[in-house]
Amino acid sequence: MTVTSLQDLRGLAVRVLTAATTSPDNAAVVAAALVRADADGIPSHGVARLPVFADQSKCSKVDGFAEPGLSETGAAAIRIDGKCGFAFPAIDLGLTRAIEMVEAAGVVAVAIGNSSHAGVLGHHVERLADHGLGAMAFVNTPAAISPWGGNRPLYGTDPIAFACPRPDAPPLVIDLSITKVARGKIKLAADRGEAIPEGWALDGDGNPTTDAGAAMQGGSLLPIGDAKGAALALMVELMGAAMTGSQYGYEASSFFDTEGGPPKTGQFFFVFKPERLGGDGVLARIEALMEAITDQPGTRIPGQRRLDNRAKAEADGVDIPDELLENLTWRAGG
Amino acid sequence: MTVTSLQDLRGLAVRVLTAATTSPDNAAVVAAALVRADADGIPSHGVARLPVFADQSKCSKVDGFAEPGLSETGAAAIRIDGKCGFAFPAIDLGLTRAIEMVEAAGVVAVAIGNSSHAGVLGHHVERLADHGLGAMAFVNTPAAISPWGGNRPLYGTDPIAFACPRPDAPPLVIDLSITKVARGKIKLAADRGEAIPEGWALDGDGNPTTDAGAAMQGGSLLPIGDAKGAALALMVELMGAAMTGSQYGYEASSFFDTEGGPPKTGQFFFVFKPERLGGDGVLARIEALMEAITDQPGTRIPGQRRLDNRAKAEADGVDIPDELLENLTWRAGG
Repeated sequence: MTVTSLQDLRGLAVRVLTAATTSPDNAAVVAAALVRADADGIPSHGVARLPVFADQSKCSKVDGFAEPGLSETGAAAIRIDGKCGFAFPAIDLGLTRAIEMVEAAGVVAVAIGNSSHAGVLGHHVERLADHGLGAMAFVNTPAAISPWGGNRPLYGTDPIAFACPRPDAPPLVIDLSITKVARGKIKLAADRGEAIPEGWALDGDGNPTTDAGAAMQGGSLLPIGDAKGAALALMVELMGAAMTGSQYGYEASSFFDTEGGPPKTGQFFFVFKPERLGGDGVLARIEALMEAITDQPGTRIPGQRRLDNRAKAEADGVDIPDELLENLTWRAGG
Repeated sequence: MTVTSLQDLRGLAVRVLTAATTSPDNAAVVAAALVRADADGIPSHGVARLPVFADQSKCSKVDGFAEPGLSETGAAAIRIDGKCGFAFPAIDLGLTRAIEMVEAAGVVAVAIGNSSHAGVLGHHVERLADHGLGAMAFVNTPAAISPWGGNRPLYGTDPIAFACPRPDAPPLVIDLSITKVARGKIKLAADRGEAIPEGWALDGDGNPTTDAGAAMQGGSLLPIGDAKGAALALMVELMGAAMTGSQYGYEASSFFDTEGGPPKTGQFFFVFKPERLGGDGVLARIEALMEAITDQPGTRIPGQRRLDNRAKAEADGVDIPDELLENLTWRAGG
């Protein structure tokens, strides 16, 4: 592990991307998003993705020079065509315009299609809450969850995120996937030849399995809440894909390799001004619930751990595995 | 049990309500909503609620003569003051206007405050989908779920509902609460002195319990997905209460008695035109996912059972328990 400052890491990430068929503007947005994930203690969504991102850009699975297009299809409706580029510049374009339009509209919907991996979904809604806005996001990803009772994955891990401002504190951010556990946990068990607890996954026949390998090869991840979670995943899939003109999880190529053309997944955001809906006292009311939560011993406001990690990373930098750092330095041109 | 036609049941429900300090207009809306729940095979939300509704109206816990007020706070934002009346007329007012405003806006938010029990949440979003719209709804209810790690309920059972049109079929409707099981199931076990499975509830100290009585007296219902479900309940509570200017679950009085003044809970809706966000092919794309689901043996499109029940009820009527029917007939004036 090597401790690296966030600024150095961003610079390195930009160089890796621009060396790999990505425009400087796009590289800056993608680099900032990945480093923010590392800062928040989510390395699975951080610069560890860069080697694949760079390879995807080089082979045109993701178009690093894409300039996303915006159409306003109503006083409160924005469509973004991601043009098979990285998701971050497309999301940035849509949310920047939403922040302007929401003043007159009170609520705005942003539908982003022809997109790719959205990174840490909570970061996008947090940015809106930093502007005093409420936001909810739905994103689809390559197939992981089967319809309830079935045996072939149709829906992605399909995260939902929510954020709202707090009067004297950083925004509240909720960010969760619909799967009971992350696919990475099951992959790790499969790599190590270890069993997984019952309730995490199904095998390729749709039967519960504790065999991590069977879960990874043609199996499915189980959703939270059984049939209820599968229904939530269906909802997120419809919002993230159908309502953005994108591909469903079962149609999308992997985020993790250079095969199969662009994933063409989607992201959907509702952005709203809390005062227009909850009235002038809305921030104080939000805070009242936060206090009612923290008044109970053993509880925690969601997202607090990320903020703690971020503060430490801004002061001290982040630990990056040496092998990854060497790989990135080599890709950046030494 | 006595088989009763839906038309007769609606007429009876209107008479029960108008005999109990409720305006004819409000009575008609409430009666239609309750009978629709019975038709769909959800008697817990049907005319079985009428004795309590009538008593709440008589004692002014719910104002049966309330005329909800509407303000447009943006080109796409509607606030409804339910004025402590029944929820159904307030929701009706907001959604009727949303259907008009969404033509120019593409998406509309409807925030309903000072409200009460919303009935079957799926019915409200289904109505929007019948107009070719997509809709998502968040509703808070009296406290049932504790914050994760805590031991005092703050959040309600807090349902989420979603609906969207299908090209040649009734709308897709998803309607689920965040609790693992309905409170009614635990109450039934408590009444019978039976144990409940682990994972359904906590006792008043925040410990897992199989004692249904302990769960009902000062305990909490467990959410789907543990900490993830608790975070979803927090999100729904903020949308249903804070973003509508309403009371949180832990502040609200019961929907089931005449104590404690108006519940003042809230309902929040996002209403959108799918074509403006997903493009012209959006309905065909929705249908493609429905087909991918039903192609797998053992699966079912959510909401299908309700439609089957409804078709049967429209043809044959519904079974109403004799004791309830006698009670209602007596309340209606014989």
